[in-house]
Amino acid sequence: MVETDLQTYAMDKALDARKGARSLAVASTPQKNSVLIKMAAEIEKNSAALIEANAADVAGAIKKGVSAALIDRLTLDQKRVGEMAAALREVSLLNDPVGEISNMRRRPNSMMVGRMRVPIGVICMIYEGRPNVTADAAGLCLKAGNATVLRGGSEAVNSNKAIVEILRDALQSEGIHPGAVTFIDNTDRAVVMELLKLEGIIDLVIPRGGQGLIRTVTENSRIPVLKHYKGVCHVFVDRDADLDMAAGICVNAKTQRPGTCNAMETMLVDEKIAAEFLPRAYKLFKDAGVELKGCPAALKILNDITPAQEADFHKEYLALTLNIKIVADFDEAVDHIGRYGSAHTDVIVTKDHEKAMRFLREVDSAAVMVNASTRLNDGGQFGLGAEIGISTDKIHARGPMGIEELTCTKFIVLGSGQLRH
Amino acid sequence: MVETDLQTYAMDKALDARKGARSLAVASTPQKNSVLIKMAAEIEKNSAALIEANAADVAGAIKKGVSAALIDRLTLDQKRVGEMAAALREVSLLNDPVGEISNMRRRPNSMMVGRMRVPIGVICMIYEGRPNVTADAAGLCLKAGNATVLRGGSEAVNSNKAIVEILRDALQSEGIHPGAVTFIDNTDRAVVMELLKLEGIIDLVIPRGGQGLIRTVTENSRIPVLKHYKGVCHVFVDRDADLDMAAGICVNAKTQRPGTCNAMETMLVDEKIAAEFLPRAYKLFKDAGVELKGCPAALKILNDITPAQEADFHKEYLALTLNIKIVADFDEAVDHIGRYGSAHTDVIVTKDHEKAMRFLREVDSAAVMVNASTRLNDGGQFGLGAEIGISTDKIHARGPMGIEELTCTKFIVLGSGQLRH
Repeated sequence: MVETDLQTYAMDKALDARKGARSLAVASTPQKNSVLIKMAAEIEKNSAALIEANAADVAGAIKKGVSAALIDRLTLDQKRVGEMAAALREVSLLNDPVGEISNMRRRPNSMMVGRMRVPIGVICMIYEGRPNVTADAAGLCLKAGNATVLRGGSEAVNSNKAIVEILRDALQSEGIHPGAVTFIDNTDRAVVMELLKLEGIIDLVIPRGGQGLIRTVTENSRIPVLKHYKGVCHVFVDRDADLDMAAGICVNAKTQRPGTCNAMETMLVDEKIAAEFLPRAYKLFKDAGVELKGCPAALKILNDITPAQEADFHKEYLALTLNIKIVADFDEAVDHIGRYGSAHTDVIVTKDHEKAMRFLREVDSAAVMVNASTRLNDGGQFGLGAEIGISTDKIHARGPMGIEELTCTKFIVLGSGQLRH
Repeated sequence: MVETDLQTYAMDKALDARKGARSLAVASTPQKNSVLIKMAAEIEKNSAALIEANAADVAGAIKKGVSAALIDRLTLDQKRVGEMAAALREVSLLNDPVGEISNMRRRPNSMMVGRMRVPIGVICMIYEGRPNVTADAAGLCLKAGNATVLRGGSEAVNSNKAIVEILRDALQSEGIHPGAVTFIDNTDRAVVMELLKLEGIIDLVIPRGGQGLIRTVTENSRIPVLKHYKGVCHVFVDRDADLDMAAGICVNAKTQRPGTCNAMETMLVDEKIAAEFLPRAYKLFKDAGVELKGCPAALKILNDITPAQEADFHKEYLALTLNIKIVADFDEAVDHIGRYGSAHTDVIVTKDHEKAMRFLREVDSAAVMVNASTRLNDGGQFGLGAEIGISTDKIHARGPMGIEELTCTKFIVLGSGQLRH
């Protein structure tokens, strides 16, 4: 397409989503739940067709020679289709945040002032990889009263298109404008650039994927962007830690699912207990197949591990690789986290109350934890229900972003003729 | 300066603010309050020097031939300097939101999960006109634990520089890094462009000023921007309104301070009561010197007013000019607000409960009010204390933005060895 055609295409899609958002804004909770349950049922009923559409994407990806890991993420089978339907049913069970009124207070002039929770409007999701993001994101946004503009990766376009068709049929059958789930079927990258200019029509952009994608979206968007950047997460084993607990937490944080943003990348160990703790941890990590890299002091205790380079401490390995650094004390640990961390998830293991409280206050990360695994930083684990991701932004949402973070509030005033003097 | 020099200049300023933010993040509430009180005292003590610095700006502005209204906004006198000091003292009396812990709940695995309120970090204010914004913004941000990078208009650079020097002296005398209030004394517009690229160092940008300024910042920033766009505000006089109350609210909303974003620009009148209400309101508006523009139906009732053009209904007059439109019913009023309004402040005057509740739900504006003047949409009137502006964004803050909106929350977890399974 030429540029003006792309502009028209993007604008038409966004305006269609706007219509969907208006339709959703006045939908009742039972109506939204019926749509979600209908979507789940139709996805299950059409699983054969979905798997067939997906097979075309998988064949294309194999032809392109992408990695086995990516092929795995892309592939839909009966089990994954079932999970997609189950996730939609779970969202139907979440409390509807829309319409909640809070902080209603009487002012000295007797007017009542409070806040009402309302949908954000139109949310544009730009993502890569797994096709189930399509149903997950559309469903969670819908429950919060938001329309979605969905731009998945080109490698999954057939799968995504098939999923969206089912979702839109369910919307229409329940009397909601199908623009509420709007799919960008044009895989030209220039379409994304046009979408990012549509301030005032699209209210929020959420990119999900690699650093490159997030950076491109941030640099080009006039619309607010909520970012889910990398997780360079730490566990600090303090001199006053229960060393058994510390070993358990560190192994869990590194190995339970190393490819996630909330897995530990660097273990910080207080020098006072390093000689006792490290050999014990070493054995557990080796048993779990973890490759260890250490600072010079750690190398003196564990002499067969690799030296860690300065750059390693900035890395999100997403793999069974771990940096070990010995620190002089609490302050050096906090400084290291501030300097090398990505302000995602950081943990202290300690029995000392004062250091626990100082860690909570002084470490400025989306989740700061005492005596628990980094892997627990998750919407489900935190009790928020389904999440759209873990925000590394400080604006609007920070940490796991659940259904409430997909809404905003407006002020409401109940008066009896009050004027300004 | 050449481009690389500008980059270095912007980066140095932002990094200095970052140091200030770290210093503020660990400051106690009494320490922050001492700084604010000291700032107020020093501003009063140095009022002669401030007024002298301001005289140079005013002379420059007169030479440039700017309007009398702008000269007035720019001018500092004893009274305005006193107000600046008083505002800083008021901020010292606000509750400190930093460190507040909320929603602390026990999860099924017995870990406690909650949220702690923390500063955002470094906030860049880009503004025009009145020099007192310099002290107001720096003070409010400081109380919330944030450093500011202040870029005022070039016409006020001498005044702003003199104010900032006083603020920084007060910071240093209380042991806080002076980067906490960082001033951009280079008036080259290209510096703003460099600042807007410093994602990760500056956390938030708040432009205050004309539409052009806000648009330029939004289009060029990689950093999240909180916008304070125009207010095209409405009062809808429903057929079930108390007409005396309606007249009082409409006159107050238009005339109490017409140059503000929360003044009414269009009055919507239900056709059922138009013939009774309009002549009454007409007299009050005429007495107050308001120029009236009307839709064709309004012209039939008030035959000496000007016809309103389609474009007028989009205008923020900021002056004693008002559009009058007669609507068939509630639904047409809500449609008009959705189509022509700027989602800032909208009011219904009615005695009917159902329509009042529907208006609250169906009008998607930052403040939606029943039976009160639009002019009451204000941080002070709403009980938030001092405000940094009225946000027209839906992300992070919507409506009056007080001290709490200058913070964010992080998740905190208190565990006893919990792992993810």
